[in-house]
Amino acid sequence: MFTYETEIKWHQTDAAGVLFFAHQFTLIHDAYQTLMQSIGFPLSRFIQELNYALPIVHAEADYKIPLTAGDQIKINVTVTKIGNSSFTLAYTLLNKKNVEVGTANTIHVSIDKDSKKKINLPVSLMNALQTYRC
Amino acid sequence: MFTYETEIKWHQTDAAGVLFFAHQFTLIHDAYQTLMQSIGFPLSRFIQELNYALPIVHAEADYKIPLTAGDQIKINVTVTKIGNSSFTLAYTLLNKKNVEVGTANTIHVSIDKDSKKKINLPVSLMNALQTYRC
Amino acid sequence: MFTYETEIKWHQTDAAGVLFFAHQFTLIHDAYQTLMQSIGFPLSRFIQELNYALPIVHAEADYKIPLTAGDQIKINVTVTKIGNSSFTLAYTLLNKKNVEVGTANTIHVSIDKDSKKKINLPVSLMNALQTYRC
Amino acid sequence: MFTYETEIKWHQTDAAGVLFFAHQFTLIHDAYQTLMQSIGFPLSRFIQELNYALPIVHAEADYKIPLTAGDQIKINVTVTKIGNSSFTLAYTLLNKKNVEVGTANTIHVSIDKDSKKKINLPVSLMNALQTYRC
Repeated sequence: MFTYETEIKWHQTDAAGVLFFAHQFTLIHDAYQTLMQSIGFPLSRFIQELNYALPIVHAEADYKIPLTAGDQIKINVTVTKIGNSSFTLAYTLLNKKNVEVGTANTIHVSIDKDSKKKINLPVSLMNALQTYRC
Repeated sequence: MFTYETEIKWHQTDAAGVLFFAHQFTLIHDAYQTLMQSIGFPLSRFIQELNYALPIVHAEADYKIPLTAGDQIKINVTVTKIGNSSFTLAYTLLNKKNVEVGTANTIHVSIDKDSKKKINLPVSLMNALQTYRC
Repeated sequence: MFTYETEIKWHQTDAAGVLFFAHQFTLIHDAYQTLMQSIGFPLSRFIQELNYALPIVHAEADYKIPLTAGDQIKINVTVTKIGNSSFTLAYTLLNKKNVEVGTANTIHVSIDKDSKKKINLPVSLMNALQTYRC
Repeated sequence: MFTYETEIKWHQTDAAGVLFFAHQFTLIHDAYQTLMQSIGFPLSRFIQELNYALPIVHAEADYKIPLTAGDQIKINVTVTKIGNSSFTLAYTLLNKKNVEVGTANTIHVSIDKDSKKKINLPVSLMNALQTYRC
């Protein structure tokens, strides 16, 4: 399990005083960015060096307890599925008291950067993702 | 069916040159904001006047065709479910050629602003939502 | 003078209930995006076709009256300076009653996309910018 | 001098592959949020407990070196001016090699939350701000 810690920022709250729902997706992507870096696939490699990309084709989230600016949170991430040309990540958001405040998951597909067509997940990435396979 | 039109903004794209996935949720919320205004429930009423709020408890989205800065899009919104204390909205995003580029839905729950407890959907809101019930 | 009209979105407000200051910069960039499109330089051209870019090297803003979600605003844009390798845009934000709620300006420099070095403003862009020169 | 460290997030970059200019303002506000917490004035106090607010009335920034997703940055913050009813913060952004990539400053005014009128900076806040006065 990969863990990412952060704090809710003022600009992530809205006029209701709580985290705007779309920003929970931004937060889990920050966790994803950090996880990918930790397994040798910093997202910058997908810009310059690698000939494939990993666009998100599905994302969903549940919201259980509202968060406000300054709240410390922990996001646990696991790889729940590795397919031929896609993988799924599951995220659990916990507050300072370790209470689950929300969950999310994202499905990523591997595509060739030129043709934009689906390709098999490269073995090197598959192996790297195994690190956090649950 | 309610329709909201907008254009993908430069700041909604990321280093891959396409709409960042979380911003599709922001865009559908912009459509929701406009729909609510059109049926007599501008979101500002939930700040000042009304004693209930409508937090999102679930959101999900599918991504079919990437969007880039300057793309004109249309978001069609329908109310797909009206429950005792919740309602569900479904969104379809179409590009200039009327091709579906993504879909999404959000579930909103009515809560008392003071107790934060679930309450029945007020009849006035229920009736207003019927306008776009499919 | 170029005019861009929009509405303050819910997600652009923060826990104080008003437009988050950084989003005023996002809003003026939306106006800039629309202006550039109107003079034949949609920002997408700087990605694919043109060999130069126009990064912002300076930006500033004043805030006079707070804005809330749902507020209709108008942003007037003029080109206040065209130099050899830079230009300056000035923005005035007005509310529904035509009262000035904020101002801003941005300085853009023309650089070669490969060398990242400053270059002279292309004549075609210079001429196009004259449209809104004050 | 107060120091805040962070990493450029994927969603803070745009189709040019670099940090979108408005997000530099967001980043310095994150530094401000952390500074305020460190001197006993977490921003949440301005929502619930304190009867005054500190809106930004002016902000400006310079951009020297573009930043990309994954870049580690350090933001140094100092209080450069404490007036009767306002204070000014100056920010310097440094990359991993300690090279200045940008600067910014913000002017904050103290207002009464009810009347929205300017008030004197409370002495407790004035004293707290002295911690990072340069």
